Amino acid sequence: MYDHLKTLRVVEGASFIAAPSCGLHLAQLGAEVIRFDQIGGGPDIHRWPRIPGGPSLYWEGLNKGKKSIALDLTRPEGRELAVRLATAPGENGGIFLTNYPVDGFLSHDQLRMTRPDLITVRVMGWPDGTPALDYTVNCAIGVPAMTGPSSLKGPVNHVLPAWDLLTGAYAAFSLLAAERRRRETGQGEEVRVPLGDVAMATLGNLGQVAEVLIGGSDRPRTDNDIFGAFGRDFITRDGRRLMIVAITAKQWKGLVRALDIQEQISSLEAELGLSFAVDEGLRFEHRGRLNPIVAAAVARRDSNELTSGFDAAGVCWGPYRTLKAALEQDERLSPRNPVFSEVEHPSGHRYLTPGYAATMTGHSRQAPACAPRLGEHTEQVLAEVLRLTDGEIADLHDRRIVAGPAE
Amino acid sequence: MYDHLKTLRVVEGASFIAAPSCGLHLAQLGAEVIRFDQIGGGPDIHRWPRIPGGPSLYWEGLNKGKKSIALDLTRPEGRELAVRLATAPGENGGIFLTNYPVDGFLSHDQLRMTRPDLITVRVMGWPDGTPALDYTVNCAIGVPAMTGPSSLKGPVNHVLPAWDLLTGAYAAFSLLAAERRRRETGQGEEVRVPLGDVAMATLGNLGQVAEVLIGGSDRPRTDNDIFGAFGRDFITRDGRRLMIVAITAKQWKGLVRALDIQEQISSLEAELGLSFAVDEGLRFEHRGRLNPIVAAAVARRDSNELTSGFDAAGVCWGPYRTLKAALEQDERLSPRNPVFSEVEHPSGHRYLTPGYAATMTGHSRQAPACAPRLGEHTEQVLAEVLRLTDGEIADLHDRRIVAGPAE
Repeated sequence: MYDHLKTLRVVEGASFIAAPSCGLHLAQLGAEVIRFDQIGGGPDIHRWPRIPGGPSLYWEGLNKGKKSIALDLTRPEGRELAVRLATAPGENGGIFLTNYPVDGFLSHDQLRMTRPDLITVRVMGWPDGTPALDYTVNCAIGVPAMTGPSSLKGPVNHVLPAWDLLTGAYAAFSLLAAERRRRETGQGEEVRVPLGDVAMATLGNLGQVAEVLIGGSDRPRTDNDIFGAFGRDFITRDGRRLMIVAITAKQWKGLVRALDIQEQISSLEAELGLSFAVDEGLRFEHRGRLNPIVAAAVARRDSNELTSGFDAAGVCWGPYRTLKAALEQDERLSPRNPVFSEVEHPSGHRYLTPGYAATMTGHSRQAPACAPRLGEHTEQVLAEVLRLTDGEIADLHDRRIVAGPAE
Repeated sequence: MYDHLKTLRVVEGASFIAAPSCGLHLAQLGAEVIRFDQIGGGPDIHRWPRIPGGPSLYWEGLNKGKKSIALDLTRPEGRELAVRLATAPGENGGIFLTNYPVDGFLSHDQLRMTRPDLITVRVMGWPDGTPALDYTVNCAIGVPAMTGPSSLKGPVNHVLPAWDLLTGAYAAFSLLAAERRRRETGQGEEVRVPLGDVAMATLGNLGQVAEVLIGGSDRPRTDNDIFGAFGRDFITRDGRRLMIVAITAKQWKGLVRALDIQEQISSLEAELGLSFAVDEGLRFEHRGRLNPIVAAAVARRDSNELTSGFDAAGVCWGPYRTLKAALEQDERLSPRNPVFSEVEHPSGHRYLTPGYAATMTGHSRQAPACAPRLGEHTEQVLAEVLRLTDGEIADLHDRRIVAGPAE
């Protein structure tokens, strides 16, 4: 937690990963992020991973540091409260983050009748309103066809929801850009961030759209070899698997030196009439010749010897291991890394929890906040943001239009 | 291209994906992004995909809309120019985006002696300065062990540089948050964005760190099934492969209705004594029973019939296809999508090019800018930003400390 955005208030009506992760980033930068949910929870309240039969660790991870208010959004009075929250006054308020349908009761055109300078940041599936999830976008742009062993016939889905995560981050900087503009011009706007557009544009930004259009064919699967340079997994004498990469000339020279394979590389270069140090693409084109040389050199050495030599030579490498092994072995995934702290959560569990992933040097990093219990801040938000009286709040409770935290 | 950040100037000294993609996002929001490179190009100048023996489509994709100045960074005079650029005056300048080493000549502590309110956003590998790339981070946190067929023994690398992309986006909102704070307080700072911390924190945010710590074991491979809900690839009667997902109750009910499998699902629910509509996790736990029912229903129908029924019922699905097929078949990946335009590039090729992936409604979307030629703006930047005279610029050219574009 930092306090860079402490003057900012964002109202979040959203679920799953993309929009809530945007709210998480802002909350970890100090913004007041008020998430509203249906009483009992929105569609992501039980999303896995969860404690079997218990709280969702996913929800608990994505909503850290936010305030929670629970409303009955199936009734007009609950919807009215959501609208009032999204459009509540205040120079640093009036920012609404959502993945609700574009033309529903939380449409920007409706909301801006109440607050003309509202900024709505709306995460969508496809830009026309068609639903999409990370997995249905990923398959539609060909990534599973490029992933995995070249011997495999079928597609390989990714397990990291990369497009959700990128879309959430895209929403965050779009929101801050819109807020910066509002301070310069006084004008609000709706920012629409469709998952599908983010994914397609990204393949364009990486040159992959041009590659297919100009080259005329799809990029083939290359197993675990990285595309266009040197790198793949290799196994050490003691059976450890390492990812070893050489993209820059410095990384390549370091690798050749650390593995003491200069002679074999030189003789291959002489045979082929080229220099692998000059152009990383040649290392990819001739990976069929290079990989066996590196594989043999790695297989002759134990991992300890290799990795200390690699570090000394500036080689870029990483160990293959499971997340559990990483948690057991890597200090960077422990409270010794200032990004992480042990935090007590509403699930009743205390566990290693990340704060803001970037480090604002010179600022004290506060411990990561935990997620709220659902409805934990219902009364506080109604009183502070909507200025309701105790009597009005009690009445909303009695009529079950709002709810506090379940006991 | 939008003009939300048109008053902002960012100097970029960086290569590869993460930091340059941050600069790209800002440039597409209208910021003046000035990228400096070594004369002849930095380490990413030939990065694949590229025209065989020619320009890099990767470089051309990641540097759209930026200005380019070429300096000899191996000489003190060239380094001095880089420092002057990063620290050039102006209320909306003084933002330096880089992946240069933390303690080199472009260290924040050095630079802020010239401009105390400088904001430096530094993308790093690991926070201690150890080099890392997307692929060496990904293996170290266990993602390749979760990806791919459960029958496979080895790891499966991802092909999408997801951590690079997320880190670049993380850098973008961190930069805007730091700039917002500077306008409130007048103070600059260094923001460090390590790829490794972004990746580890993300697995924490998704609940996966807690899942392993509390559950005590790693998440196993689940082939193409999504974790914790219903979804995987299915093949239609006419041999098309579709990703079909049902996370929300609405998506599940729509799927059951569209496939007309209500009876089989009800009888399975009766047998197991549960309701699949209530809890998406049950759909995952019992996927061994559900998948064959859905697979058989999908296999009985042609893709056209299925997908129109799916759309009518609000089912979330996507086709598996290659990127080439997507470019041939999908209007959303064509100039009919306002995000994309045909643009002439320095490579001499004209091809489909993405602009800003989010839509700022109510603002005219300008056509995406192309990347500069290397050194295209050398003279302009020296004159406008550093206020050098024609004579001084000519002298720098003569001494080969700067270079314009190659002819």
